[in-house]
Amino acid sequence: MTVKTFSEALSKEIEAQTYGENPVELYEPIRYIMALGGKRMRPLMTLMATSLFTDDWATALKPALAVEVFHNFTLMHDDIMDNAPLRRGKATVHEKWNPNIAILSGDVMLVQAYELLMNIEDTKFKKAMKRFNRTAAEVCEGQQLDMNFESHEKVTEEQYLEMIKLKTSVLLGFALELGGIVAGASDKSCSLLYDMGLNIGLGFQLKDDLLDVYGDPEKFGKQVGGDIISNKKTFMLIEALERATGDTKIALDKWIAAKDFDNAEKVKAVTLIYDQLGIRQLAENRITSYFDKGVDCLNLLKVEEERKSELKSLVAMLIDREV
Amino acid sequence: MTVKTFSEALSKEIEAQTYGENPVELYEPIRYIMALGGKRMRPLMTLMATSLFTDDWATALKPALAVEVFHNFTLMHDDIMDNAPLRRGKATVHEKWNPNIAILSGDVMLVQAYELLMNIEDTKFKKAMKRFNRTAAEVCEGQQLDMNFESHEKVTEEQYLEMIKLKTSVLLGFALELGGIVAGASDKSCSLLYDMGLNIGLGFQLKDDLLDVYGDPEKFGKQVGGDIISNKKTFMLIEALERATGDTKIALDKWIAAKDFDNAEKVKAVTLIYDQLGIRQLAENRITSYFDKGVDCLNLLKVEEERKSELKSLVAMLIDREV
Repeated sequence: MTVKTFSEALSKEIEAQTYGENPVELYEPIRYIMALGGKRMRPLMTLMATSLFTDDWATALKPALAVEVFHNFTLMHDDIMDNAPLRRGKATVHEKWNPNIAILSGDVMLVQAYELLMNIEDTKFKKAMKRFNRTAAEVCEGQQLDMNFESHEKVTEEQYLEMIKLKTSVLLGFALELGGIVAGASDKSCSLLYDMGLNIGLGFQLKDDLLDVYGDPEKFGKQVGGDIISNKKTFMLIEALERATGDTKIALDKWIAAKDFDNAEKVKAVTLIYDQLGIRQLAENRITSYFDKGVDCLNLLKVEEERKSELKSLVAMLIDREV
Repeated sequence: MTVKTFSEALSKEIEAQTYGENPVELYEPIRYIMALGGKRMRPLMTLMATSLFTDDWATALKPALAVEVFHNFTLMHDDIMDNAPLRRGKATVHEKWNPNIAILSGDVMLVQAYELLMNIEDTKFKKAMKRFNRTAAEVCEGQQLDMNFESHEKVTEEQYLEMIKLKTSVLLGFALELGGIVAGASDKSCSLLYDMGLNIGLGFQLKDDLLDVYGDPEKFGKQVGGDIISNKKTFMLIEALERATGDTKIALDKWIAAKDFDNAEKVKAVTLIYDQLGIRQLAENRITSYFDKGVDCLNLLKVEEERKSELKSLVAMLIDREV
């Protein structure tokens, strides 16, 4: 089994979904956002987790899709809240249609995520749903914290890590755990899979923060330096504020307080401060540490080593990613 | 058992719910909207439906609450879309907090509705959830149609009835059906309960349309004539447009096209047109007919007659309501 096999089965499953017909304003945005693609790493993780325990990983296709539909529901609603014009290079739903349609289509997507989740054997279903409910609430909590932090004077590293854990990592944890539940894996194995996803999720989000500053503009999909321009309190900025002293501190505070500035100039100056403070290395070490912890969990899983290879290559891809 | 018994048990259950703690911005709006009260007729209907078949109706408390939480979730999101400042005489969530919080709190409410629904025995749970998913999607479809109709030149009676069926009636149908499912009633009985709720829901919404025109301003919570002022294509207006001819037609079209007008004057004039066309009687007949059909379904249910008395008095209250 290769990543490609899982990926193709998943694409086929997504294309086969119709979501609903009438009114078209309600269902067309769902087809639109689901067709935008993306890495689809969450449902891939579910399929791969199931295939750790059984060759019958196709039983996890619809539950995996539930995770992807849920994820895209959060994107559709987050984009309204963040007033984002673009998603994966295309107009966001609230821009292409309007905010009301994005609210309502998103609501139906959440319902459809539950409907897809129902494709789990009765004996395992309530366990999966209980965990899904908890995860879904936590993702909302994370988004609320993220919005709250915008107006906070100071955000600590601990608070930031808690926020990204809720907003991003718990869903990666659930995606893997769900694969285990579908396969009928033991509680111990499911718990290891969840912890694996949690750590990978933290590494993944910190990598996102890092790429926002040090990504290759040719490869990175978004504007490099976007977080710096908006003073987003990412791991990078929080660490820099913690470590800066003397003139560096004065310079950093000045750029944060600046109202009128040239974007490119601010990005260049703050990146230089990060360089001086060793923030890049610090972030890279932390990312490696989280991914390592994730792989440790995988190593502890009591399944044949060869069954782990696909998940290991997925993690390697996430570590090395430049976009 | 009296309505009061069910109602008190329900209030106690609602007050015992905490929904969640942190972040407070996410959970406080849920406590706020749930404390606004209202008739709570949907969860009452669930409890009463369960008590048709068993004295152990308390097993339906949490599932009934799922219906009420879902209903309030739709109100929270609908109020954003409709730009409504007030709900039950108090500031709406998006006004008291902001639209982003209303989106996100609503999302968590939907998740919590599912969590509450899980309090159904395993053997009945998937049936209940399947029906809940379908109902939830239909309620969203109804809201989308309602928004679509605002910009439609013409809405037929058939289209209007389909819209209110989806937006309002299916949830009343589900509320009753759910009570049957929890009680372990037969498919035939559950289906009768659903049809009963569907018809009562149609009667209930048409009564709403009627009260908006002919309600007693002293008793009616909202501004009497609100639908007339905004040209809302209700049953009343659709019928009037269908029936008006000659000078009456010219006058009605003039008021609908009018940009600058005195609200009271327009309400008075259009109400007079409705009077002339016999729209009030027409609506009242239709309302009676739907409620009668609802009671017919109840009569067909094979349970002891005395067990039906509470549901019958609830329906009577809905028929006679002035607010």
